[in-house]
Amino acid sequence: MDYKIKGTLLDYWTKRIYPAEVTVKDGKIFSINEISSVSPNDGVIMPGFIDSHIHIESSMLIPSEFARLAVVHGTVATISDPHEIANVCGMDGVLYMIANGKKVPFKFHFGAPSCVPATVFETAGDALDAVKVNELLFMDDIYYLSEMMNFPGVLYNDEQVMLKIASAKKINKPVDGHAPGLRGKQAEAYIAAGITTDHECFTEEEALDKLKFGMKILIREGSAAKNFEALIGLLDVHHDNIMFCSDDKHPDSLVAGHINVLCKRAVEKGIDIFKIIQSACINPVLHYNMRSGMLRIGDPADFIIVDDLENFNVKQTYIDGVLVASEGKTLIKSISEKMINKFSCDEKKPSDFLIEANDEDMFPVIEALDGQLITNRLNLRVKKENGFFVSDVSQDILKMVVVNRYTTAAVAKAFIKNFGLKQGALASSVAHDSHNIVAVGVDDESICRAVNLVIKEKGGVSCVIDKEELVIGLPVAGLMSADDGFSIANSYTEIDKMAKKAGSGLSAPFMTLSFMALLVIPSLKLSDKGLFDGDKFELLPQYIFPKA
Amino acid sequence: MDYKIKGTLLDYWTKRIYPAEVTVKDGKIFSINEISSVSPNDGVIMPGFIDSHIHIESSMLIPSEFARLAVVHGTVATISDPHEIANVCGMDGVLYMIANGKKVPFKFHFGAPSCVPATVFETAGDALDAVKVNELLFMDDIYYLSEMMNFPGVLYNDEQVMLKIASAKKINKPVDGHAPGLRGKQAEAYIAAGITTDHECFTEEEALDKLKFGMKILIREGSAAKNFEALIGLLDVHHDNIMFCSDDKHPDSLVAGHINVLCKRAVEKGIDIFKIIQSACINPVLHYNMRSGMLRIGDPADFIIVDDLENFNVKQTYIDGVLVASEGKTLIKSISEKMINKFSCDEKKPSDFLIEANDEDMFPVIEALDGQLITNRLNLRVKKENGFFVSDVSQDILKMVVVNRYTTAAVAKAFIKNFGLKQGALASSVAHDSHNIVAVGVDDESICRAVNLVIKEKGGVSCVIDKEELVIGLPVAGLMSADDGFSIANSYTEIDKMAKKAGSGLSAPFMTLSFMALLVIPSLKLSDKGLFDGDKFELLPQYIFPKA
Repeated sequence: MDYKIKGTLLDYWTKRIYPAEVTVKDGKIFSINEISSVSPNDGVIMPGFIDSHIHIESSMLIPSEFARLAVVHGTVATISDPHEIANVCGMDGVLYMIANGKKVPFKFHFGAPSCVPATVFETAGDALDAVKVNELLFMDDIYYLSEMMNFPGVLYNDEQVMLKIASAKKINKPVDGHAPGLRGKQAEAYIAAGITTDHECFTEEEALDKLKFGMKILIREGSAAKNFEALIGLLDVHHDNIMFCSDDKHPDSLVAGHINVLCKRAVEKGIDIFKIIQSACINPVLHYNMRSGMLRIGDPADFIIVDDLENFNVKQTYIDGVLVASEGKTLIKSISEKMINKFSCDEKKPSDFLIEANDEDMFPVIEALDGQLITNRLNLRVKKENGFFVSDVSQDILKMVVVNRYTTAAVAKAFIKNFGLKQGALASSVAHDSHNIVAVGVDDESICRAVNLVIKEKGGVSCVIDKEELVIGLPVAGLMSADDGFSIANSYTEIDKMAKKAGSGLSAPFMTLSFMALLVIPSLKLSDKGLFDGDKFELLPQYIFPKA
Repeated sequence: MDYKIKGTLLDYWTKRIYPAEVTVKDGKIFSINEISSVSPNDGVIMPGFIDSHIHIESSMLIPSEFARLAVVHGTVATISDPHEIANVCGMDGVLYMIANGKKVPFKFHFGAPSCVPATVFETAGDALDAVKVNELLFMDDIYYLSEMMNFPGVLYNDEQVMLKIASAKKINKPVDGHAPGLRGKQAEAYIAAGITTDHECFTEEEALDKLKFGMKILIREGSAAKNFEALIGLLDVHHDNIMFCSDDKHPDSLVAGHINVLCKRAVEKGIDIFKIIQSACINPVLHYNMRSGMLRIGDPADFIIVDDLENFNVKQTYIDGVLVASEGKTLIKSISEKMINKFSCDEKKPSDFLIEANDEDMFPVIEALDGQLITNRLNLRVKKENGFFVSDVSQDILKMVVVNRYTTAAVAKAFIKNFGLKQGALASSVAHDSHNIVAVGVDDESICRAVNLVIKEKGGVSCVIDKEELVIGLPVAGLMSADDGFSIANSYTEIDKMAKKAGSGLSAPFMTLSFMALLVIPSLKLSDKGLFDGDKFELLPQYIFPKA
């Protein structure tokens, strides 16, 4: 197939913007010719957007459905760590993502998950040791070693960690980092080990510290963590070493916009357009050796047409020369896909969630922070009632639980501040990194109902208020749905509304909930094995309820 | 060891130039602190220079001696294709270069030679097939697949060529190109095969054509090929994709200057200093994943101090924190090194060079072009005398021969225009790519004497005029000397003068001579098997003398 497109060309390679005719042949850019003029209605032809770090699982959609939503915003490719599904289904999960992603015209670039399980302090569904990671890294479909979260393991030369890094370096595939708050000599040592990127910076100073040691910085703006405002000022000078990513993106926000929105916001800051495009479309391709096109002759014809270089409203998206989205509509068809899962625990009863009171009443309480993965550790008085510790809606100190989804086991329990529920409960089998079931609620009845809704679906997110209940089944690894992505986005909007109706003032209650079991991010978290001190990286056995 | 250096810092990473104190600890950059002022005498601290493509063999020095000369000019590292020694000694030659290079404080980064032998139309000393190349590529000391000169092999999917490229791509080591004059669709196909660089462009248009398809361009300024003036205009826009190299650098010109001189000339053109430094010091490290430092904290302390950013006179050179050159003097000691060679042919007699005359007298004659590797193909009348075709000094049409050095065989003969000798002869066992003995002279006596001088030394370059004779022995593979590099440079200056005294008006007669057997560069060349049409890539059996 052979066709020509006229428009104003943003030519990153010559740093010029000019009227041009682009000829596409056999899925590649065949020629680019400057012409005398084009109509403003023809729009601007530019390279497609790339999300340089996103866990597809966070969209609750399998890759083929994720693609359908993303192309609408001009996204043509992602760098994606299948870390979530790997923690549930191991190697089979990674292969599932690759195989499903190949069925649609979209360029997924998966990494080999470096930290499965993420810690020894939780129950995961599978493990990827250095041998399995090495096997993955040698696959052509694996582009990098992803997100080395175990930064203590790097700093202290943990054998398995070092073997995984050595495998990647041996074949010159990049090693992705994850080191929130790491500074100075520790950052230097972490980077010196060969780790090339970080997407966890939340201040400019931290990012500059890492840039100084040669790391590339991914500016992240996702559903939960939002670092754009804090970091965008770096782009003017450090544009060679900056990329954009979302990390985690819930389905509702994926419908609303993607990397295109970050470009719009960067333009509003007065940043040079070529530096923005370099970060959004070029740097990831070069860093990760992606198979995406960058609008050079001979490149795969992965490009987009936007209305202008201020709003980046996407008129058309092309991947390998195929029109995959036009004027806000996806042209990619849904496909039917088989399931993969690990989910095996009995339904619970309300008494499973009881916490017997003891003499103490001051406990370490998790403080959820809106828009952050980190939590604070508070020391608060917990309400006692009838010989049990219970949720205290008036103080906004609620019971939170983690239920092992892989086997029937005792429930881990704690208390959380700042979640805001006034009624009912939420539960989710999306609970980083091991994806057990995490739930929060105002009473054990509600918590139990929410948890059992998830168990019945073998994975999902649920909300209960009085008689009302809503659940989105996520039968693919308990993380994703294979249904139409736009419907899932609508359902997610519904259940998000319901969670807010239940009282939560958080901007994305389910996303925040899903990070409350994420041990690798400080300060206080809850695993299926109990309360966890993320600063000291140890369980707090004295606070495991009920006491032995 | 721990020390501090003050000076004006050229900080590529923040694009700033400011007074600073750099602390070096354990061979690494420990800290960089801005201070209030420094003395202008402290000079400018900047990253060291990198030659992004040089055959060390062309310096006629083994790596350890090359390093001694190069550090004086602030060169700290090279990307080096051991192509020449590999054509003589195969895998053992490559390992010899790596082992010798490791004995001195200098960062050689060798590649796996891709084209050994370069063609089937000449006799080489060894071969590296795809299996051996794969073995080399897996070594940590091998950084890339070097100089894929067989571009027809790439364009027509030659199996061995494609296997070698696939090996490199599999482990993400870059593939270097070599495609003089390749344009348009052919350039596109060559680049699409995964070839990432080219150092053979001689016009800006050609370079732009290759840049457009995503290739990086190495601006080459060596002893023979000089493309700086033609290409430097590209640097302003294309600085992300430009590097500097010399490709081939004779010992006399290595004493005179290196990449520092190219930077000085670029500054004189008014190009932004940071773009120049990016090309000279940064881009190669990133492209080839080199182990050289780039003046970031934590990097190996590979840096230099220059007088200013206009002249780049190098005051000091540091590698891994060790001072290796100061004020024009090398501080690297010579080492004694074992030899490696393949040289086995009997001495010749003058009658071996006779060409019996026949009825024809118009022949394809090679036209040497000063400062170019390419030649022209002329059709000229060759002088007959006493029943033989002979050199014609008055028309500057001289006899040129190639003598197989690996075994005793018939001598290949041809005629060359524009070499300029009025008396005597030159011979050299540096004769790309197979390094047989190439000689040119005004009569068979002189040619024979020059050839035999080289044979007696088992490799070298020689010049004879009447009773006078001079030879530089190159016993390492017939290509290099293990003697003090500065002495070899002096000897080379002497023999170069002598060649010019013999009448050659070429700026580097031995360098030009060494390319007359280089079949992969058009248009007309001479291999040990006879006259070769470099445009059609075939021998011309009808012009092999004497006729069968």
